Amino acid sequence: MRIALGISYSGSAYQGWQSQLSGNTVQDKLELALARFSTGPIRVNCAGRTDAGVHALMQVAHFDTSLQRDIASWVRGTNSFLPHDIAVQWAREVPDDFHCRGSATSRRYAYVVLESPVRPSIERGRVGWVFRPLNGPAMQEAAALLIGEHDFSSFRAAQCQAKSPIKTISRIDISQRAGYWRFEFEANAFLHHMIRNIMGCLMAVGQGAQAPDWINQVLAAKRRDAAAPTFSPDGLYFLGPRYEDRYGLPERTAAYDWLP
Amino acid sequence: MRIALGISYSGSAYQGWQSQLSGNTVQDKLELALARFSTGPIRVNCAGRTDAGVHALMQVAHFDTSLQRDIASWVRGTNSFLPHDIAVQWAREVPDDFHCRGSATSRRYAYVVLESPVRPSIERGRVGWVFRPLNGPAMQEAAALLIGEHDFSSFRAAQCQAKSPIKTISRIDISQRAGYWRFEFEANAFLHHMIRNIMGCLMAVGQGAQAPDWINQVLAAKRRDAAAPTFSPDGLYFLGPRYEDRYGLPERTAAYDWLP
Repeated sequence: MRIALGISYSGSAYQGWQSQLSGNTVQDKLELALARFSTGPIRVNCAGRTDAGVHALMQVAHFDTSLQRDIASWVRGTNSFLPHDIAVQWAREVPDDFHCRGSATSRRYAYVVLESPVRPSIERGRVGWVFRPLNGPAMQEAAALLIGEHDFSSFRAAQCQAKSPIKTISRIDISQRAGYWRFEFEANAFLHHMIRNIMGCLMAVGQGAQAPDWINQVLAAKRRDAAAPTFSPDGLYFLGPRYEDRYGLPERTAAYDWLP
Repeated sequence: MRIALGISYSGSAYQGWQSQLSGNTVQDKLELALARFSTGPIRVNCAGRTDAGVHALMQVAHFDTSLQRDIASWVRGTNSFLPHDIAVQWAREVPDDFHCRGSATSRRYAYVVLESPVRPSIERGRVGWVFRPLNGPAMQEAAALLIGEHDFSSFRAAQCQAKSPIKTISRIDISQRAGYWRFEFEANAFLHHMIRNIMGCLMAVGQGAQAPDWINQVLAAKRRDAAAPTFSPDGLYFLGPRYEDRYGLPERTAAYDWLP
């Protein structure tokens, strides 16, 4: 039997998603909790490996088990063994052809930026920060140049393991609620650090250091050093993957409305 | 010269506002930062002493100094010595008759509650939590009974030092954004634990354990044990005091829009 889980977490206390010897990753904590609940080892796959400090409103993981349990008990039982900043939001039985990474048709991320002369305090670790005002229309114009299929080599971390740098971004929505800007990204897949590198470029345009059409030069260069520095992980949230309707998986969790 | 400061902080890491021997309070951190910036001891007063775990979007403090500095430098300079979860948002010179506590004409607080079958994760420490659905109209009806001048002895902590239990609540606004409920309170002043005790009662009504008009019985009893248990500090935010217009102090900070 294959089970899919939707998981929300704050990434602040962890060295990212992927299991490490330290044991201080979200995957390690989840596998430990599942092992305690099911009294046997469980290995999970995930839809998108998040970096250290990156949060998730709906990570999706899956695993196989022969254990017969009421499906709701995988939520309650696992949560009782998880740290307080990680929680399983839903559990669903899925067919064996489902793979949380391979079956995902797109991934969604949000980045929240505080625009303020004063650094973050109460929202520390949960927002990026700029102290100069951002120019919304200029950022919209720059973002529009990234929509569609492109070679994103200029936005790719050196340690990226993806086979191809060619990805398709279907939307970048930019909205503002007083001092908080929200950038929402959707693509078939993202390269390592791709959103943080795009955010660095959008911040350069938004603060007037570059013109919007500079993005075309960055894309054309296909070299990492053509783009702006990688922006902080603090404001990045994995909103979750999308799957074909036939799997019947939730598209969002309650935590979505926590963000401005 | 008297200077007023507006300060935002996350209360999660501190033993409340008021100075303690441990040194691990917001007041201790602020006085230490002011002393480092001004190279001399500075003692501050505050508008509202927050409990351990309670956050502030706009605490107001004041102090006297003979130091001549550009007023903006009190923001930048103090922030460079403050921990990352506390930040001065504004500084203003005020007349000597101003007192951050004594001059306040009202205080505002917000309480955020997550209504979800699953406990908080990403918003851990920043929201209260109920797993049963809340009845909005019933809570509105109950809250309306608390508006006006009342003896709030039933909502007063044993250690409360206020001279009189009679306070005037001018409004309790209840709103909802998907799974997050926001309760906003304004009164001339609040007793110790008064909002957390009111929240406990509103949760009892919202979940159907009590009828709305039970609030009248609680008020009439004037005994703490007539009310519901004190609700968690996790979702409580001090929104700040209000002052007469002549002082020209800001009514809010950027952090207000961080809440749902």
